[in-house]
Amino acid sequence: MAQLRIALAQVNPTVGDLDGNADLIVEWAARAAAAGAHLAAFPEMMLTGYPVEDLALRGSFVEASRLALERLAARLAGEGLGDLPVVTGHLNRPPVGLVRAGQPSGLPLNAAAWLHRGEVLVRSAKHHLPNYGVFDEYRVFVRGDRLPVVRVHGVDVATAICEDLWQDGGPVSVAGEAGAGLLLVLNASPYERDKDDVRLDLCAARAREAGCALAYVNMVGGQDELVFDGDSIIVGADGSLLARAPQFVEHLLVADLALPAAGPAEPGRTPVDAHDGTTITVDRVELSARPVPAYPVAPQTVAGPLDDLAEIYAALVLGTRDYVRKNGFRSVILGLSGGIDSALVATIASDALGPENVHAVLLPSRYSSEGSVTDAEELVKRQGINARIVPIAGMVDAFEDELDLHGLAAENLQARIRANVWMGLSNEHGHLVLTGGNKSELATGYSTLYGDSAGGFAPIKDVFKSTVWDLARWRDTQAGVDLPFLHPFAQEPIPQAIIGKEPSAELRPGQRDIDSLPDYAVLDPLLADYVERDLGRDALVAAGHDPALADRVIRLVDLAEYKRRQYPPGPKITPKNFGRDRRLPITTRWREGG
Amino acid sequence: MAQLRIALAQVNPTVGDLDGNADLIVEWAARAAAAGAHLAAFPEMMLTGYPVEDLALRGSFVEASRLALERLAARLAGEGLGDLPVVTGHLNRPPVGLVRAGQPSGLPLNAAAWLHRGEVLVRSAKHHLPNYGVFDEYRVFVRGDRLPVVRVHGVDVATAICEDLWQDGGPVSVAGEAGAGLLLVLNASPYERDKDDVRLDLCAARAREAGCALAYVNMVGGQDELVFDGDSIIVGADGSLLARAPQFVEHLLVADLALPAAGPAEPGRTPVDAHDGTTITVDRVELSARPVPAYPVAPQTVAGPLDDLAEIYAALVLGTRDYVRKNGFRSVILGLSGGIDSALVATIASDALGPENVHAVLLPSRYSSEGSVTDAEELVKRQGINARIVPIAGMVDAFEDELDLHGLAAENLQARIRANVWMGLSNEHGHLVLTGGNKSELATGYSTLYGDSAGGFAPIKDVFKSTVWDLARWRDTQAGVDLPFLHPFAQEPIPQAIIGKEPSAELRPGQRDIDSLPDYAVLDPLLADYVERDLGRDALVAAGHDPALADRVIRLVDLAEYKRRQYPPGPKITPKNFGRDRRLPITTRWREGG
Repeated sequence: MAQLRIALAQVNPTVGDLDGNADLIVEWAARAAAAGAHLAAFPEMMLTGYPVEDLALRGSFVEASRLALERLAARLAGEGLGDLPVVTGHLNRPPVGLVRAGQPSGLPLNAAAWLHRGEVLVRSAKHHLPNYGVFDEYRVFVRGDRLPVVRVHGVDVATAICEDLWQDGGPVSVAGEAGAGLLLVLNASPYERDKDDVRLDLCAARAREAGCALAYVNMVGGQDELVFDGDSIIVGADGSLLARAPQFVEHLLVADLALPAAGPAEPGRTPVDAHDGTTITVDRVELSARPVPAYPVAPQTVAGPLDDLAEIYAALVLGTRDYVRKNGFRSVILGLSGGIDSALVATIASDALGPENVHAVLLPSRYSSEGSVTDAEELVKRQGINARIVPIAGMVDAFEDELDLHGLAAENLQARIRANVWMGLSNEHGHLVLTGGNKSELATGYSTLYGDSAGGFAPIKDVFKSTVWDLARWRDTQAGVDLPFLHPFAQEPIPQAIIGKEPSAELRPGQRDIDSLPDYAVLDPLLADYVERDLGRDALVAAGHDPALADRVIRLVDLAEYKRRQYPPGPKITPKNFGRDRRLPITTRWREGG
Repeated sequence: MAQLRIALAQVNPTVGDLDGNADLIVEWAARAAAAGAHLAAFPEMMLTGYPVEDLALRGSFVEASRLALERLAARLAGEGLGDLPVVTGHLNRPPVGLVRAGQPSGLPLNAAAWLHRGEVLVRSAKHHLPNYGVFDEYRVFVRGDRLPVVRVHGVDVATAICEDLWQDGGPVSVAGEAGAGLLLVLNASPYERDKDDVRLDLCAARAREAGCALAYVNMVGGQDELVFDGDSIIVGADGSLLARAPQFVEHLLVADLALPAAGPAEPGRTPVDAHDGTTITVDRVELSARPVPAYPVAPQTVAGPLDDLAEIYAALVLGTRDYVRKNGFRSVILGLSGGIDSALVATIASDALGPENVHAVLLPSRYSSEGSVTDAEELVKRQGINARIVPIAGMVDAFEDELDLHGLAAENLQARIRANVWMGLSNEHGHLVLTGGNKSELATGYSTLYGDSAGGFAPIKDVFKSTVWDLARWRDTQAGVDLPFLHPFAQEPIPQAIIGKEPSAELRPGQRDIDSLPDYAVLDPLLADYVERDLGRDALVAAGHDPALADRVIRLVDLAEYKRRQYPPGPKITPKNFGRDRRLPITTRWREGG
């Protein structure tokens, strides 16, 4: 066996920020070197950020990315880091390629490169391209067909990228046949509830399949609707967990591994059947044949995963913080109604940005209960956020002087006047508007277009109302707890009166959600089965949902599609949300159950 | 040679309307039978409409589509149409299939079926799946690997689907090797400017390649952002144009063809190298071996294509009419400012729905010029649309009593108040809101979020300002002309004063577009090169654009991405618009030219 100290840099790049991302690589490679690592690895598409979507089709962006990689290699050497092999994801194109109709313009590659002594030592690209859910990689990448196997201090290290691990055959299979001692996998794997369990099982299974240890380095941070949770993992050849990074924070996972010494294979290229209908060329390169002298092993980090509510809450905080920050904002504004949704959003914002950067507007109307204002004021006081009151009665009167609106039209008028106020204050003061809508509302269309649904970012867009309450209660239990994604409030940040009250839009006298929607305890599981699990009408009934209710909810969800097209983005946390991974036609007469 | 009379049904289905689309097939099959056709063909995915997007991943929808096809076959026979072979597109799944990770759930197929005497005679599925531009077919379909060759009155007719024609190898190649006498291609090919020329050249080239005549039947009608223009085509084996349907209208294209009599091949299945790395199984079926007795040939329709402006205008009218109609609306409402954009949108709406279904709101403010109101009133009078005046001064005052807004924030306030008025009237009266924004505004972000950009459908969303003027002038020249997509106005529908005036948002005293944007004659070609042709900064300069202006416009376009995410859909008419085929990240630090 040969010893090897590897460092997995679980870091937070920004899409398109080539210089900033290169700075991150240099900074974290230096940390890895300082920690005595023999190899440092960064996530998939680290240099460009992920996902770049259609930017991959713009030739000037691909060229800039290629140039950035060359410059990075030289810079690492220039800063004394040339002897440390650095493996990073980037955007590349093949030197020559056969262009076929329907292939992405410029043949972009989701690539990995080994950098060493100022040079790009070896290049490869993702073989299995995901094209489902939030992924559209057939659209923007062509497939790679090479597996680098690099001998580092006498250990053969193979590299693969993300989806290569999730599909059968391809790089995992070939790594096994090539006799690799370590399979290094670069990832940009977005967070989904419960995905941490799946991911560990997958790493273990693939390690056993390839017959070698597996190191999985993942990105962390928010990018539009996606949140990358980190959770980098190292498992042994038998699938046993050796090291694991904490979720939702940047982290350098350093681990000392005992790995099999490389066999007699010589440098060079060999085509191998990839057992997926394709051939992959093994590209063997030797950096250093001799194992490092024996050294004492350092203790490994094995972070425990967060519990379910903590994990969701952390994703919302990180997604909100990064959207605000990466778009160049420092502060946010939101309407604070005294209800649970805006209360939770204000708290997430305080945790993400600090209470001093949160601006609340209280917008009472003739239908607002007294409790609404006092509860909101209590929250403002507990969290120390900025707040002002803007009564809307005069504005409503001015519209009603010219227009004769009734029922829903009159209710929507108030919601749109409120949006006009917070958009005006946003334009005047440069705060990003946070929107309070939750997934139950968004699913059923229980909101006003250009009213309460208006804003720049919607932190709880992918959270059902039942979970909104759970998160609020959970957050209150964390007052005084020291977690990296929580502001240290001394007191429960959300008043119990807000958590306990019956939900109401307060747009007409005595209005209650329950007048328009089923009880959330019944509605939310039905929505989860219809929206997230894609069950049809009959399958919903077979799963135990009331047939009449299923028909009603299916109709609400289908008819609200047009509203969701105009909804601001928010962090994705479930298997399917209303963003890019649920792209249904607006115009459709298809109805479940006829 | 053998004679065959074929009928291509260029019709307008609606996504998800299985019963309505089946009705259309029966109705047009009856017309084909009445015209003496020996074969009737319908577009790609006719029975479900196209594109179904992620609906293809819902098992209950696939099952309903399969059942609808069986019922359709029986119903055609029941209505005395059983002897007419009917070829139609539909949604299918394989009877058994090998599920692999990353493949679409349920393995849906973009399928074609031959219906005859109450049965489904033979089935196939699209081989080449487009996954670029507006197409995401790797996401929702698996690839077909079968080419049906059906002997009809002694002629071997092969069927393929849309993209099968655009890519090399595959069904065209195999149809040639199989010795087909006619290649029948079912299409759902969306309109793009100048695509009619490309399409005819492609049909001619593929006919020569396969060595047989080619019949191309296309869908017509609007579906969300797509407009299908019809333009069905029949060419001979030498590529010569034999028949062509008019664009943007439903049409039964009937043509008498003289085709080679079939060779000695027997029914059965034969695998053939498809020359694209795959194998396709030729599935030969015999319906009738004997040629029809000689009969006199009827004259063929060879419609001339529309000129460029007529074609664009027709696409806008059809796209608007179908979006309104297919979403269950009968009438529309829009703000009429006295400017060119809202004037053109009102005219498109009058042409699409009739002036009696168009409701205009004139919303003068303290900054509106007198001409704005009188010009708008003149348009109302010429077109006979409904109109009311709602002054907004009192509403603006009511906001300013509570808020101290300046500059852009004060300008946006007025735009949002106007949107609140038309959304209120929409909610009260059930009219769909049409939005007046054009592509130049949308590209540069020169509009107010939740203000003038608010609405249900944006007819000129994909039309640059320069083309807005061209279309307005063109439309005025058509007064009194009889075209199927124009309302018969006796007089020019758009007053010259509106076409001739300098563009202004009229949100502050003396405001002109030219204060914020370059002249449209300079801006629009630059936008076309950046947005539609994806040229990078250096390529823009090399193409002759001013470097400083290119930098300025690139920055405007990139920064406005978040606004466009919230923009209502509109008909697509250019190679790349701001809908589904330009999906760039919101959060990005990538800037052309650094």
